[in-house]
Amino acid sequence: MSILHQIIEPTLLLDEAKCKSNILKMVEKAARNGVRLRPHFKTHQSHAVGQWFRAAGVRAITTSSLRMACYFAADGWDDITVAFPVNTLEQERLNRLAKKIKLNVLVEDAGTVARLNDVLQHPVGVFIKVDLGSHRTGVSAADTNTIDGIIAAMEQADKITFKGFLAHAGHSYHARSHAAIQQVHEAGNQMMQTLHDRYIGRYPQLEIATGDTPTASICEGFGPTTEIRPGNYVFYDVTQAVITSCTYDEIAVALACPVVAKHKDRLEIVLYGGGIHFSKDVLEMPDGTRNYGAWVPGQGNHWGAPVPGCYMSKLSQEHGILKVTAEWFDTIHVGDILLILPVHSCMTADLMGSFTTLDGNRLLMMDKHEEYFLD
Amino acid sequence: MSILHQIIEPTLLLDEAKCKSNILKMVEKAARNGVRLRPHFKTHQSHAVGQWFRAAGVRAITTSSLRMACYFAADGWDDITVAFPVNTLEQERLNRLAKKIKLNVLVEDAGTVARLNDVLQHPVGVFIKVDLGSHRTGVSAADTNTIDGIIAAMEQADKITFKGFLAHAGHSYHARSHAAIQQVHEAGNQMMQTLHDRYIGRYPQLEIATGDTPTASICEGFGPTTEIRPGNYVFYDVTQAVITSCTYDEIAVALACPVVAKHKDRLEIVLYGGGIHFSKDVLEMPDGTRNYGAWVPGQGNHWGAPVPGCYMSKLSQEHGILKVTAEWFDTIHVGDILLILPVHSCMTADLMGSFTTLDGNRLLMMDKHEEYFLD
Repeated sequence: MSILHQIIEPTLLLDEAKCKSNILKMVEKAARNGVRLRPHFKTHQSHAVGQWFRAAGVRAITTSSLRMACYFAADGWDDITVAFPVNTLEQERLNRLAKKIKLNVLVEDAGTVARLNDVLQHPVGVFIKVDLGSHRTGVSAADTNTIDGIIAAMEQADKITFKGFLAHAGHSYHARSHAAIQQVHEAGNQMMQTLHDRYIGRYPQLEIATGDTPTASICEGFGPTTEIRPGNYVFYDVTQAVITSCTYDEIAVALACPVVAKHKDRLEIVLYGGGIHFSKDVLEMPDGTRNYGAWVPGQGNHWGAPVPGCYMSKLSQEHGILKVTAEWFDTIHVGDILLILPVHSCMTADLMGSFTTLDGNRLLMMDKHEEYFLD
Repeated sequence: MSILHQIIEPTLLLDEAKCKSNILKMVEKAARNGVRLRPHFKTHQSHAVGQWFRAAGVRAITTSSLRMACYFAADGWDDITVAFPVNTLEQERLNRLAKKIKLNVLVEDAGTVARLNDVLQHPVGVFIKVDLGSHRTGVSAADTNTIDGIIAAMEQADKITFKGFLAHAGHSYHARSHAAIQQVHEAGNQMMQTLHDRYIGRYPQLEIATGDTPTASICEGFGPTTEIRPGNYVFYDVTQAVITSCTYDEIAVALACPVVAKHKDRLEIVLYGGGIHFSKDVLEMPDGTRNYGAWVPGQGNHWGAPVPGCYMSKLSQEHGILKVTAEWFDTIHVGDILLILPVHSCMTADLMGSFTTLDGNRLLMMDKHEEYFLD
């Protein structure tokens, strides 16, 4: 890979062709299933990658923070759902966005509805976050008492329009087969159908928003869903390959890391590439190893399949330890650049802050310390 | 805490008084034990905090990358050891530094010595990295054949001066008592003593550089050591408290996080503060829980001790889940700001990119995307 000759330190490579193919496949799936695609942009956090979505016809997006919504609004995105329990302390950003774009936020209790309405100067759409079984956030889909209370609070709130129900089936990440993903998908659809049937009479415009990467990648038929919101699929990663959401060949990012030392006695390669580059996210593999990344040798101007028995076994702040097999050990030299598929591409991208395409173009991401204004 | 009223999103608070006290205690310990203190600056990565060290008399420092060495050299630090196996691909940064400051780097094989000498235009000092039992990097202290080969290569290299032996007893992080830390310390000193005795005749200026935070915090008497290099102690964290390197009261940083939701059925508080703020570093606690941080209530203009039974149990990209006891649950409200002591302050600081003192001053850290020049 010619790009490797220019690399001197940990660098996040982006295979633009794979990424655009991932983007296009999901656009086609949404169209085929009659649902709106509102991709989650927290994975790439990049104006440049966002524009590839726009070129594929995407018009509505999801972000994980109001700050990130400002960043994308500054690039012309005008229909954004912030898929995080709304933080009303960020009053200024809420109003900056609500004044200029179609902004949707999430609530899961009636008290927050009142506080939100108090700080708003402009109208926003509000989804009720529903818990389909991942038990991170949201109201249980069966708890219609609480849901009715939240809706009642919205009816009292002059700046708030009730949009519908939003869920993230995060427990699909425990799946390790298409059948298991399908099961999470169907159970979620059933719960959403019950809510749909209960509220559609009163709210004919009711939105049902779902769609994590595993179910959105694998399943067809979205039941009552009007909108899907996958994000990670833009890059995928080793976790998604293990879940069976993607093949290894669809993973569009790899961290290029210099080799700085070798230890033959323990068959370990020391890479310049650690927790501040990969993140400390770890994946338990089917073979029981704890994995921080998979090694893929360069192949022409791309990378190949992961090498069996070779994996990132340990990370500290700047060091990464790659366990290799005896046959591969001697083929690797200090000063080489190795390519590692990340366990969790969202976290790795967030840490790296930019991408380098295989043509050598550097694509910047959101600067976490900058405040973004909408012209 | 009055500072909490100004916080609207995850913010890394720094208790300046605790931090300066940590800095001073280590300066005094080094003086008392007749060793040079060369603190590792990877924990704070901040010119402002660096200046507190300078005010305490520190003149030599350690960094974990050449990039970070450039950042501190740009603020006037002129004696820097980069405690990472030297990455000769960063030829330009090596020479930029070596031209202006006293630069030391690490090697652990003879081939790298030759490659390093080839790319250098200016002289550098070189340490041999020794493995005292953590098995991350370095030559085994007993492997004098390899060591002799590396030294012979240095004798052939016109830009390189052999400085001595450097080690990081990273396995002290497995200790959970002063006695266990002391054991790591004494075993390391013995191995270093053997090396010292073997080479001091030929190299009367031989440096012996050791000093991780646990042993440097707890032990007295550094044997053959001429220089200690702890870093984390500037802030400490929950991991160091569990190792018994520090008390909870000495921890100088806390991540302030807004409460965005509550779940009474599972006694969970949802915080705006996740893996992109804390890092995904996790600590197994003595009680068997997996912990991503400890909750400390605000107390006057400081924070108090961790609340037993309350801890960060899960992190995703932006969400953090705080498990609390029933008696505390009702005292916490959506919109509150909670303070969480990080499990690993180096990683949390690296992610947050700035500190806010309890007086409300914002201290910037190194910008990972900027290239720093030494005018």
